[in-house]
Formats: sequence, structure tokens, C-alpha cells
Amino acid sequence: MSEIFIGVDFGGTNIKIGYFDSKLKLICKTTAATKADMGPEAVVDRITQTTKKLLADNNLSAQAIQAVGIGAPGPSRIDEGIIVAAPNLPLFRNVPLRQMLEEKLSKPVIFENDANAACWGEHVAGAGKGVDEMVFFTLGTGIGGGIITNGKLVHGFADDAAELGHIITHPGGRVCGCGQKGCVEAYASASATAARATEAVQTGAKSTLKKLLDEKGEITCKDVFDHCDAGDALAKEIIEGTANALGLLCVDVLHVTGPQRIVFAGGMIAAGDLLLSRIKYYFKQHIWTLKPEPLEICFATLGEDAGIIGAATLAAQAVETKPNG
Amino acid sequence: MSEIFIGVDFGGTNIKIGYFDSKLKLICKTTAATKADMGPEAVVDRITQTTKKLLADNNLSAQAIQAVGIGAPGPSRIDEGIIVAAPNLPLFRNVPLRQMLEEKLSKPVIFENDANAACWGEHVAGAGKGVDEMVFFTLGTGIGGGIITNGKLVHGFADDAAELGHIITHPGGRVCGCGQKGCVEAYASASATAARATEAVQTGAKSTLKKLLDEKGEITCKDVFDHCDAGDALAKEIIEGTANALGLLCVDVLHVTGPQRIVFAGGMIAAGDLLLSRIKYYFKQHIWTLKPEPLEICFATLGEDAGIIGAATLAAQAVETKPNG
Repeated sequence: MSEIFIGVDFGGTNIKIGYFDSKLKLICKTTAATKADMGPEAVVDRITQTTKKLLADNNLSAQAIQAVGIGAPGPSRIDEGIIVAAPNLPLFRNVPLRQMLEEKLSKPVIFENDANAACWGEHVAGAGKGVDEMVFFTLGTGIGGGIITNGKLVHGFADDAAELGHIITHPGGRVCGCGQKGCVEAYASASATAARATEAVQTGAKSTLKKLLDEKGEITCKDVFDHCDAGDALAKEIIEGTANALGLLCVDVLHVTGPQRIVFAGGMIAAGDLLLSRIKYYFKQHIWTLKPEPLEICFATLGEDAGIIGAATLAAQAVETKPNG
Repeated sequence: MSEIFIGVDFGGTNIKIGYFDSKLKLICKTTAATKADMGPEAVVDRITQTTKKLLADNNLSAQAIQAVGIGAPGPSRIDEGIIVAAPNLPLFRNVPLRQMLEEKLSKPVIFENDANAACWGEHVAGAGKGVDEMVFFTLGTGIGGGIITNGKLVHGFADDAAELGHIITHPGGRVCGCGQKGCVEAYASASATAARATEAVQTGAKSTLKKLLDEKGEITCKDVFDHCDAGDALAKEIIEGTANALGLLCVDVLHVTGPQRIVFAGGMIAAGDLLLSRIKYYFKQHIWTLKPEPLEICFATLGEDAGIIGAATLAAQAVETKPNG
């Protein structure tokens, strides 16, 4: 009998599912709409059916599964496999996702926070391969992340480690959605970058973004990068602010867990070297002169597959360490 | 034959040595001057002789030692047991302290960074007992610390994790000895607290500290706490600044490793609740309102014994996991 692993990346809009062979090679993947408004039971049903169809298309049954890994949005209780609450999933309150999925599939399910699963994916197969001391940031609507120390994911006491977007880089600054002032997320996330540009234009700053705002009614983070690339001075100033905050963030996390490598992921890294080179520049501006730092700063390489790869790998590792699991 | 452990806390001024029974109970301890200006060979000799005398006074020989743990100032290469450089030990450059001591004592020696050793001491026997997710700060001339995640000390890639005094709480602010601007150490260490008070008095701020400065020629951190306690408004303002920076620091490290408990140690905690209550106050001012945080903030309980307890315990754990070590 083959021994395969399933990796699930459970998002507010889509669910990605991949099936992996016994050597954890990704064989096939699929995506289904989450339809979170239909409630937890229906969503777990859809994960089950989509998984079974993915396997059937490859002439396999659910019997072939050795274990399933799922990365889900938090806050969650990781050991118990429970989604406590999630901003994009209003119907998911204290949902025992792991247990529900185990009952449907009759297979062991391993539960992890979604950013941690993606972090683990990059660690085993991507930009952090072989790096046992690593910090992982996701730059999207918000800023999230994962931490690896001594080769292991750090969950923290209340499963709220690596809330990296809420490190304060601008004390007393912009109010964050979390209630703190000056979080890096309030400056350097995609939405904060867009918001800072919008506010500047609305308060009279000269920019080619003005016409865009007048016509479209909004400025996106991508617009800011595009206009920066095209030479707009305000857009450049906004991007410099974003990179500056991320450079400071790198200094702060370096001094906590001492990573070998910091890996940035998420939608914003599509900006490429325009962003990466400036993050590195500001890191060098802010870091001490006491001694040279061997820290490497880079972008993730697995794209949207990081979550399913990480989840499947965590599942395989869990059954390895629990032979009867 | 008895199986005892030795814990050594190697400081720039003094060396503390304790001997522990097989159950890691501290039986007897002593202190010797480091006399670092006599060089590494002489210092290692003194550690050896002081250890032998401590044992002889208790009718034991060095043969009874199972393993020795030593906490030493850094930067160091922990796995190799080498002091790379230490600000207070100018003659110690790339000194293979572990190997030298092993040769003198013919016993296994376990090497650790001094702040990590003290952190481990508080973890096994002090304010962090039973706490597998912990952050430890030492408030002295500088600010140092240690991090425990998943029940293990975090060393980081280049053994420079937990350089917690160099987290930036005041971007663009006071220049730190390390070359960065706005490090928490440049605001909230004992020397920075004294310096901020001295500068305020020198630039004309009204304070009872003025008379002290005129008479003694300097203001110490303890003076600032004493005058704050006696009602001086400037001293209170300076202490509030110190506590504010430490509260911000707690928010930042909470969002990285998610500790259950943050333990403050070092000379400054002699200020007692005058300091602790204000750190807690500012933590609450700065932390998010998203959800209540179960974080506990407290002071260390082992005082100067933390280092020898931690070092001896690490030695015992190392020989346990390496039966032939």
C-alpha cells in the first residue's frame, strides 16, 4: 500500500490541497473555494470531498493516506487543533477542526497555524532549507510570520509567538488594528503602504498617484510600487518608509533569536529587488557596528505552495515520531 | 564515589564557584578575584586552585567532580567553548576556556554565555521554574538576557541570540555603545538611567540631584531611584522613562517568542516594586487590546547564585545526555 501525505492550506477565501508521495514530493494539487459562510461542518465536508476527488483522479483512495497536515488561520490552540477565532472566518469560533477532519477521513490530522506551516515549508524545501535558526515574515494585508529556533517552530506559551507584525517600530505612531500604536504592520504591510500613500495624496502631496486615486477611487500597494518604479517621488518616499520599517524589524528580531536567515514571503514580494534591496539597505543603516552580522535577508521561493508543503511535512514528521499515531 | 557538579560564574571582576551534590543542591560556594590582567593561563589556574580548595575544605578531591559548568562573558563560540572577545577582559581574545579548564581538571567542562547560564539558573530553580517559554533580562551597566523556547536555551546562528539590550525602542534616538541609535540599553540600563539624569541636571532641570552632582561629581542609578522615592519630580520622570522603555521591550519580545513569563534580574531590580510596578504599567499601556495577554512579568529570585546554579545544571544535563561524556 502506498503511503501518501496530504497538505491543506486553509484560507478565508480558498483552500489549497496537495498530495505528496512517501518522500514528500508534491504530486498533485488543487484549490477549492472555502465558502466559509456555510459554516464549519460544510467546510470540513468540502475539504474531505476535495481531498478524495484529488486522490480518485490519481487512482487512489483515502485509504492510501498516512497523515494529513492542515495550516489554518488563528488565533488557535495548536496542540488541540482548535480554531479559536479568525478575522476572515466569523463563523469559526472554537471549532475543533482537527478532530472534525480526523472523524471524516479516519486518518491522523496534524494542525498548525497557517503562517507557521508556510514557514516550515520554506524551511524544508524553500528559501530556508537547512536553516535551523530562521525568521519568516509574510507581507500581505497584515504582517505575520513564523520563528524557528534550534530547528523547531516556536509556538510560545499561548500559541501567540511570532506575531511579528505587532513589533513596535514607531513608538507612539500610527494606530494599528490591534490597538497598539506604531506596529510595523501599521507602516509596512500592503494595506498600510497603500494607506500611507492615499493619505499623503489626500493631504495635498504631489504625485502621479493623484490621478489614479481620482479615477479609481483607491490606491493599492501594487500601484505605489508601480509608480515608484516609474519615478514618482512620493511613491518612492512611501516605499522607502516601508523598507525602513522592515529594516528596523530585521534588527529587532536579529537581537532576539539570532537567526541565520530572514525570509520574506507574501504578496508584496512580487515587487522584487525594488523592495529587497531597500530592506537590506535600511537593515545596514540600523544595525550595530560592533561586529559584522552574518545575517542573510531574502525572499521566499515556494510561492503559494509553501503552506501545503509545510503542512504535509509536519504531518509526516508527526507520524514518524509517533509510530502508532 | 560521590558525583558532584561544579558551577562557575566567570565575571570581569570576580569568579564565583559553587559545588553541588548529585541532586544539584548547592552545598558550598566561594568567590575569588578574577585578576584578568594576569591573562588567561593565570585565570584558569586560579579557577582550578579555587575549585580544589573549595572541595578540600569539604574533604573532597577533584576526583569527585562529574562535570563542570562555566558561564563566561561574550561574544563567544559556545559549542567550541571559546571566548572570542569580552569588553571587560581585554586579554581574552579567542581563548579556548573550556579546553584549558578540561586539561587542568581532567573533567568534562560545559561552556555557556554568562547571561544564558543565569537565565537557565532562574529557569531550573528560580523565578522561571517550570516555565518552558521564558525571556530573561539582566539590568546592569548594560542590558543582556537569555531566551528559552520549547524548554531550551536559544543560542542563535552565530551565538548572538538574546542581545536584548539592542532592541530598538527609540528609533533615531540616543546613540548606544554598539553603534545603533535608540537601543533600549541607551535608555533603560543602570548607566543610561544615570546618564539621562545627569544630562537633565546639567542642562538646567530642577532636581534634588543637582546638589548631589555638585558634591559627588556623579549621579548613580541608585541615586535616581532614591531621589524618586523621596519625591523628586525629575528623578521620577527619569525612572518613568526607564520603565516606559522596558514596558515597550516586553511588548516586542512577547510578539517574537510568546513567553509565559519575563524575568528581570541584575543590580537594578534592587529598586523593587518602584520599578516592577511601573514596567507592568507601561507594558499595559503599550500592549494590544486584541486579546488579554497571560504574560507574567516578575523579578529574579536567585540573586548572584543564578549563574553558578545554571552552569552546574547545564553541566549535569550535558553528562546525562552523553553517558560517556
